[in-house]
Amino acid sequence: MEKEKRTEIASLGEFGLIDHLTKQIQLKNASSLKGVGDDAAVLDYQGKRTLVTTDLLLEGVHFDLTYVPLKHLGYKSAVVNFSDIYAMNGIPRQITVSLGISKRFSVEDLEELYAGIQLACDIYGVDLVGGDTSASMTGLTISVTCIGEGDPDKIVCRDGAKENDLICVSGDLGAAYMGLQLLEREKRIFAGETEFKPAFEGHEYLLERQLKPEARKDIVAELDKAGIVPTAMMDISDGLSSELLHICSQSHVGCRIYEDRIPIDYQTAAMAEEFNMNLVTAALNGGEDYELLFTVPLEKHDAVAALPGVRVIGHITKPELGCCMITRDDTEITLRAQGWNSLAEEE
Amino acid sequence: MEKEKRTEIASLGEFGLIDHLTKQIQLKNASSLKGVGDDAAVLDYQGKRTLVTTDLLLEGVHFDLTYVPLKHLGYKSAVVNFSDIYAMNGIPRQITVSLGISKRFSVEDLEELYAGIQLACDIYGVDLVGGDTSASMTGLTISVTCIGEGDPDKIVCRDGAKENDLICVSGDLGAAYMGLQLLEREKRIFAGETEFKPAFEGHEYLLERQLKPEARKDIVAELDKAGIVPTAMMDISDGLSSELLHICSQSHVGCRIYEDRIPIDYQTAAMAEEFNMNLVTAALNGGEDYELLFTVPLEKHDAVAALPGVRVIGHITKPELGCCMITRDDTEITLRAQGWNSLAEEE
Repeated sequence: MEKEKRTEIASLGEFGLIDHLTKQIQLKNASSLKGVGDDAAVLDYQGKRTLVTTDLLLEGVHFDLTYVPLKHLGYKSAVVNFSDIYAMNGIPRQITVSLGISKRFSVEDLEELYAGIQLACDIYGVDLVGGDTSASMTGLTISVTCIGEGDPDKIVCRDGAKENDLICVSGDLGAAYMGLQLLEREKRIFAGETEFKPAFEGHEYLLERQLKPEARKDIVAELDKAGIVPTAMMDISDGLSSELLHICSQSHVGCRIYEDRIPIDYQTAAMAEEFNMNLVTAALNGGEDYELLFTVPLEKHDAVAALPGVRVIGHITKPELGCCMITRDDTEITLRAQGWNSLAEEE
Repeated sequence: MEKEKRTEIASLGEFGLIDHLTKQIQLKNASSLKGVGDDAAVLDYQGKRTLVTTDLLLEGVHFDLTYVPLKHLGYKSAVVNFSDIYAMNGIPRQITVSLGISKRFSVEDLEELYAGIQLACDIYGVDLVGGDTSASMTGLTISVTCIGEGDPDKIVCRDGAKENDLICVSGDLGAAYMGLQLLEREKRIFAGETEFKPAFEGHEYLLERQLKPEARKDIVAELDKAGIVPTAMMDISDGLSSELLHICSQSHVGCRIYEDRIPIDYQTAAMAEEFNMNLVTAALNGGEDYELLFTVPLEKHDAVAALPGVRVIGHITKPELGCCMITRDDTEITLRAQGWNSLAEEE
């Protein structure tokens, strides 16, 4: 087997490394006046609103390099930020990428990571305009900030949901979470902790949802084409339940969603059965789907129901009715935010 | 002695923690339309250029919590980003702050950190508009992105220095580096590794330069008042030598600076003698001074020489003359970029 090339980062130095990783970058957006290579990037947003979002990804918390390829990780790091800009009904235009890297990583490793970031930027039409590269004493740290633009009268926040609005989600839920379970099982198999035979066949969709998520640029474009401006919108990164509670709390409303309306892919359902997990719990609380959750006025029902890849799952109520899911057997279950709880876990 | 209050972060959860740390934030800038609490912040820069810069600070690499108080660390994390915006001749307006935190830190610790960030924001008139908070398996990670604005015809990049331009620096150099040496010595004393008696008296300036640096907002304002737009500008974070080489390489020019023109404070000189270190090396290569290095056309000599806190230290030459310092005994020494080399160090 041919040995892979490994160039030590020290052989390039900080500035050499940045040059090496960014020299092929070409700016695509008219609003990107100046990119990497100065104290700050220079952007121009005349007449539009500027949107800014940021995400921090830490090794051992947000990703596990034993099963996440670096190129996929780069792709996902960029896409999760684009998703936040789409969730404001905006268009992502620029990102900055800061990396904390230990000597465990070679120049080739970082090229892979950057290749993934660049691929995401190419597909979504975003410019990489700056960042910071630094030594790390421990694992890999990735901090991405995304800047986007939006029309002043079309930006959608979380606080605009009104009583009787329809609650909609794009795509399907729970698949990324099931993909993670599958990868974790595979990891335990490699570690010899279980006798279970690895089996990725038939689960490609779940793996892709976990390793290479996409942001719903298409849904934002469809909504625009249909003349629909949602009253509230978020992307689903921490699970439907948690995000819906954010919208309801910030909009001072309650909600009812229906179990049988929650979109779930066949592979997700099959996997939940194999793992003996509650499917609806996975769909409500499994994170990282990066689908859009939004509310629209009731009179938009027919327009929104006609959109491909969008499902109406419930409606907004008065605040005193609380936030509940109606199960298949007509029981009301109060929604809870499980979501992110790493800090609450045992050390 | 009264026991300090310690609230576990797990008792608040992620969203509770963010609310707790950001609830008192009030937006100050007209361009800050919406801050913390949605997928993205919403900004408005009509007719101005938008500037974006980002910095990643990692425990054990950029700071050592054995001698850096968290409030100072917060202050510095914000200020070093403001400095990058001023270095473009712009005005910082918003920051996002992402934190990776391990369970070693309490809510009170993070309040201290945020108090420092907020103090810097108040003093510099900047709004904190967003961020991301996450568990970390290891130390503290701080990623700050700063957004600023600038007049299209006044933004200053690194690539505009011309032959015969004057090279200027603000303040004095090498003090932050000497402050770091002093703190490191103090740390070794606490660890019992040396018999040396700790002595901070008479070195207050050096400690302040290291622990609580300021960005040169005043110099940018003075330049504007004097009608001077520098041809190139950077902030000095990696040392004068390294930054000057950046300007010369990006502007395709050479330079001559004069050893006896480099501004050095008395405390810096005294400390260098005590440590038996070369003073000029410290001033050339010691980082973190966050002073401004800029070039102006020759005809601005009298105007720039009249500015308080600015020193002309040399001039720009043809590229073929290279980048040199003329020593006190009239020898030419080629400038080298030492700067950041953590990745080249032994593991």
